[in-house]
Amino acid sequence: MRIRHKPWAAAYLLSLPFFLASKEQLITYLKENKDKQFVLEIGVGKGDFIVSMAKKYPDLTFVGIELNSSVLALASQKIEKEKLANIVLLSGDALVILEGLGNSPFQTIFLNHSDPWPKARHEKRRLTSNRFLKVYEQILQEKGRLIFKTDNDGMALYSRINMSEFGYKMLKYDEDYQDTDEFDAITEYETNFRTKGITIKRMIFEKRDYVN
Amino acid sequence: MRIRHKPWAAAYLLSLPFFLASKEQLITYLKENKDKQFVLEIGVGKGDFIVSMAKKYPDLTFVGIELNSSVLALASQKIEKEKLANIVLLSGDALVILEGLGNSPFQTIFLNHSDPWPKARHEKRRLTSNRFLKVYEQILQEKGRLIFKTDNDGMALYSRINMSEFGYKMLKYDEDYQDTDEFDAITEYETNFRTKGITIKRMIFEKRDYVN
Repeated sequence: MRIRHKPWAAAYLLSLPFFLASKEQLITYLKENKDKQFVLEIGVGKGDFIVSMAKKYPDLTFVGIELNSSVLALASQKIEKEKLANIVLLSGDALVILEGLGNSPFQTIFLNHSDPWPKARHEKRRLTSNRFLKVYEQILQEKGRLIFKTDNDGMALYSRINMSEFGYKMLKYDEDYQDTDEFDAITEYETNFRTKGITIKRMIFEKRDYVN
Repeated sequence: MRIRHKPWAAAYLLSLPFFLASKEQLITYLKENKDKQFVLEIGVGKGDFIVSMAKKYPDLTFVGIELNSSVLALASQKIEKEKLANIVLLSGDALVILEGLGNSPFQTIFLNHSDPWPKARHEKRRLTSNRFLKVYEQILQEKGRLIFKTDNDGMALYSRINMSEFGYKMLKYDEDYQDTDEFDAITEYETNFRTKGITIKRMIFEKRDYVN
């Protein structure tokens, strides 16, 4: 999805109470809200998924990260409009934001239609490549889940194999996901793919318990 | 499941119109019924699965194989009682019966709670080991499916990895299957496992199209 650059995005985001301007602010926020159950979405995009989920699960707190601040501004407008109090957003590189966060704050990480980066030399940019999986392990609670959806066959296969090999436990895999999971939200983006006959691949992985 | 040897089993089976006494009889049967859609179950046991499925899908014809003729006699009694005309049964080693059958007669192969043979030296006896997978490939139609259920974690992991590596395409995997698939039947055996807190693992694989 291409979104025109919005010169007003940065100032707008900074004016929002639910926007966290830095990794340090996220650390403080997580510390001050230790009693809450946190769910992470990496690649919030225009925010349809996180907004639907936050409405559906008011007892969970959603942390959303998006690289593109102009896109995040669109998501923020939806959150303002819906007056949702259980979302915080950050703009930036997920790896930088999440690395070394520690303390396993998240019960679930959602990756929805992440960029497949099909070229081999771009593998490490994929959100399911090893350097990301390593970080997810640090920030996921015991038995925490990584839930991944994609319309891209190559990315589905890569992610499934890579997560399995990394040591995550596969709980579920759907080559043609039919929106059967209550803990999920369907976006316009997905409906458009289905209209074109492209299936949505979805998988659930669990963080393993390590004896050592 | 241990069943007492039934000395009357062989004579009883041979008296049944739906019992095929040899591989040759199966070949003839498949040839004479080319217009039918065939589904195979290997390891019919006491027949609860195949009987339920045959009742539910009268337009499909079920071929059941079971090594133990005493067990197969119990399954046969159920088929007689239900007056089902869309099941045929064979007794013997599945590999011997199926090898070289050719012609890809089956649209689906069901393996339900096959013996896990946990010792490494018994690997080749597992119904999801390579010599079996090779035969399934010969007898499955294009895009035919291999549907596997087990209560055994080790067998689930072995089968998933082996089928994937062999080249079957994974369509679905459930670490804790919840009887959500219409094309399935739940047996007392499974209900007993669930009562003990043991999950049923289920997976669906598809025969790949090969370009060469």
